[in-house]
Amino acid sequence: MKPYRELNHEELKKEYAAVRAEYDALKAQGLALDMSRGKPGKAQLDLVSDMLTVLQSPEDCRDGKMDVRNYGELAGIPSARALFADILGCRPEECFIGGSASLQLMYDLIAKAYTHGLLHSEQPWCRLEKVRWLCPAPGYDRHFRVTETFGFELITVPMTPEGPDMDCVEELVKDPAVKGIWCVPKYSNPDGIIYSEETVRRLASLKPAAPDFALMWDNAYCVHEFFGEFVPFDDILTLCREAGNPDMVYEFASTSKITFPGAGISVMAASEANQKYLQKLIGCQIISYDKVNQLRHVRYLKDKAHTLELMKKHAAILGPKFAAVLDALEAEIAPLGIAHWQKPKGGYFVSLFTMPGLATRTLALCKEAGVTMTGPGATYPYGKDPEDSNIRIAPSLPPADELAAATKVFCKALRLATLEQMLADK
Amino acid sequence: MKPYRELNHEELKKEYAAVRAEYDALKAQGLALDMSRGKPGKAQLDLVSDMLTVLQSPEDCRDGKMDVRNYGELAGIPSARALFADILGCRPEECFIGGSASLQLMYDLIAKAYTHGLLHSEQPWCRLEKVRWLCPAPGYDRHFRVTETFGFELITVPMTPEGPDMDCVEELVKDPAVKGIWCVPKYSNPDGIIYSEETVRRLASLKPAAPDFALMWDNAYCVHEFFGEFVPFDDILTLCREAGNPDMVYEFASTSKITFPGAGISVMAASEANQKYLQKLIGCQIISYDKVNQLRHVRYLKDKAHTLELMKKHAAILGPKFAAVLDALEAEIAPLGIAHWQKPKGGYFVSLFTMPGLATRTLALCKEAGVTMTGPGATYPYGKDPEDSNIRIAPSLPPADELAAATKVFCKALRLATLEQMLADK
Repeated sequence: MKPYRELNHEELKKEYAAVRAEYDALKAQGLALDMSRGKPGKAQLDLVSDMLTVLQSPEDCRDGKMDVRNYGELAGIPSARALFADILGCRPEECFIGGSASLQLMYDLIAKAYTHGLLHSEQPWCRLEKVRWLCPAPGYDRHFRVTETFGFELITVPMTPEGPDMDCVEELVKDPAVKGIWCVPKYSNPDGIIYSEETVRRLASLKPAAPDFALMWDNAYCVHEFFGEFVPFDDILTLCREAGNPDMVYEFASTSKITFPGAGISVMAASEANQKYLQKLIGCQIISYDKVNQLRHVRYLKDKAHTLELMKKHAAILGPKFAAVLDALEAEIAPLGIAHWQKPKGGYFVSLFTMPGLATRTLALCKEAGVTMTGPGATYPYGKDPEDSNIRIAPSLPPADELAAATKVFCKALRLATLEQMLADK
Repeated sequence: MKPYRELNHEELKKEYAAVRAEYDALKAQGLALDMSRGKPGKAQLDLVSDMLTVLQSPEDCRDGKMDVRNYGELAGIPSARALFADILGCRPEECFIGGSASLQLMYDLIAKAYTHGLLHSEQPWCRLEKVRWLCPAPGYDRHFRVTETFGFELITVPMTPEGPDMDCVEELVKDPAVKGIWCVPKYSNPDGIIYSEETVRRLASLKPAAPDFALMWDNAYCVHEFFGEFVPFDDILTLCREAGNPDMVYEFASTSKITFPGAGISVMAASEANQKYLQKLIGCQIISYDKVNQLRHVRYLKDKAHTLELMKKHAAILGPKFAAVLDALEAEIAPLGIAHWQKPKGGYFVSLFTMPGLATRTLALCKEAGVTMTGPGATYPYGKDPEDSNIRIAPSLPPADELAAATKVFCKALRLATLEQMLADK
């Protein structure tokens, strides 16, 4: 197979006819496949069924002296705070335990910055003329939407294979209207990039003009390897403290992709000064998140080491799915020179870049053939990919056979879209 | 026993000495008792232990076609929406299911009014010069604190035995800055008053100047009788719709005092137009609340009729506790003519009014003798009881023997505080 750019017009036309025929044949199968979101598959959910019955009696529902069934303990039960501290490398006192969605903790933090201000805010952000926010992109659509819904101006920061472009970030934070940045430091959504040590150090050492700049550290995939061994990471709270920025960082994680996506627990880790300030505000909002479910998780997951054992079982299910996608891309697309992508070893996505202007058309062709993918532009602020090039592939949900079929459709759609454009250009 | 007002100075001094001796004897016991919050006691929590294991396998975790373990279904699982619709008398489509705290749903609604505005808002409330809020008092401290934390001006509305003083409410809502009211329509916190049919009708028919006025209908004790039969109530959403106010009302309830206070589920019922508007905003905040716990509740509670059976069991535990308090007040305090109180048949509190200026002193004397009660003023906006008279008694948590001891302390403290003042006045 030759790279498409080396084909002449006749060869391109011939290739187009061949790919079109293959695509039409797949389309005729009337598929209905979903690779749109990072949803774990049924086999992964079944892994953790024992958690359902880990608490059976009133006696089981005690965490030390506390009866977790009753009201109280705003920040979460001590053992759950200790569990997340173990996983993240921070201190239990720095952990606030939330409900099934870390997204809610992130949203609520931004909401409180907007309505009340953060610890070092001069005033609530709703009183400011303008709030700007840094969005390394491609990134996570739900992050971008949180800051968009509060009317912040989203500023795209390019991603590099080492993480956000730090020269760019360091320049932008000189603007006092820039109030924060979204980061997914390990297996970034969607590229699957692990921020380099240098990038993490520079982020922890930022000197933003805004005294209440928020480093939103969404460690969503902190223990989520699907190929190879666990990759350790430094505690960002410690790094920020050592760099003289103890209150700048808010770290988030959850068990959504460890136990049940629809019934996990989450954490916001932040300095004790931040915890004190925020818990006073959060105390007006809730009495505590679900403490019985916190204890269920503690009894089931036990500690970091035991959690990593469970993650190996997830990897045994997820690894082959990612391999199927990456192998198909390597075999069918790589030789054609029409796209590039990272080869992640963890996280939930493969992020592919088409030639400029082809993401929308590729995804439309996928849809036409019954394969739903994340919509075009979703990985960029305001849902607008300036190059119309990035496509997020989420291989976790479909069973192996469906995944193979969906990937086949995707490869044909990508080739077809590329050929259409090349033929139109000639 | 004669009413204190009929005693002469010498008799008062004698009575003081006698009560002081009794109080000192109780104090010497070194008690550490808590009647401060409406927390269910251990026996109530033990009632529902079977819920812990009602879901055991992957197959158990399906609600119709939906796997509740995975992401999705923002408004909650259909069967949970149907359960609350059955209990509240509204439609399933009008129910949004939350986590363990209905307080969070209330807070989040007010927060969204503040940051984004409600369905009929002309602008977000954070853009307004002034927001005023009606607080029938005595009322629930956590309600008042939600509206206080957003800087609203809290306006006290007197409570009558029929509910909020409606002449007052109807007058106040003519002010377009008045944006809402807190209501606990059944067994109001703390008085235990059931709003009369007339009061409910007038509330549903309000014609507020503000187009986005919010009738916050916290039906926290909707099935929470502890004496006698279930008292039915009309669906407030229907009443508001019929009165031409379909989008004015937001109703809240939870299972906090049905199953586990620390691990229940909650609901916000509102018109379908409100649901559509709000879910678009809530969709930026969460993916869904814990759906496994929603299904646990559905399987365990089944429906309204079955829930009412469970409430009978709670009543069997709570009824004697309330009887102990009410009987002690009747026997020891009523003849003295030094306080008055409602005699509720449901809810979680007894609300007592001392002679003006004595609540703080009475509670200090309680504390000195090792009995913690809700702090003085807690039932009024800004924590300030203008008469320093209302005391909220929460008999649910202590076991029977502790409750008897605590009530004894309370009665002595109340008598002592009253005598101190009467002697000082003479």
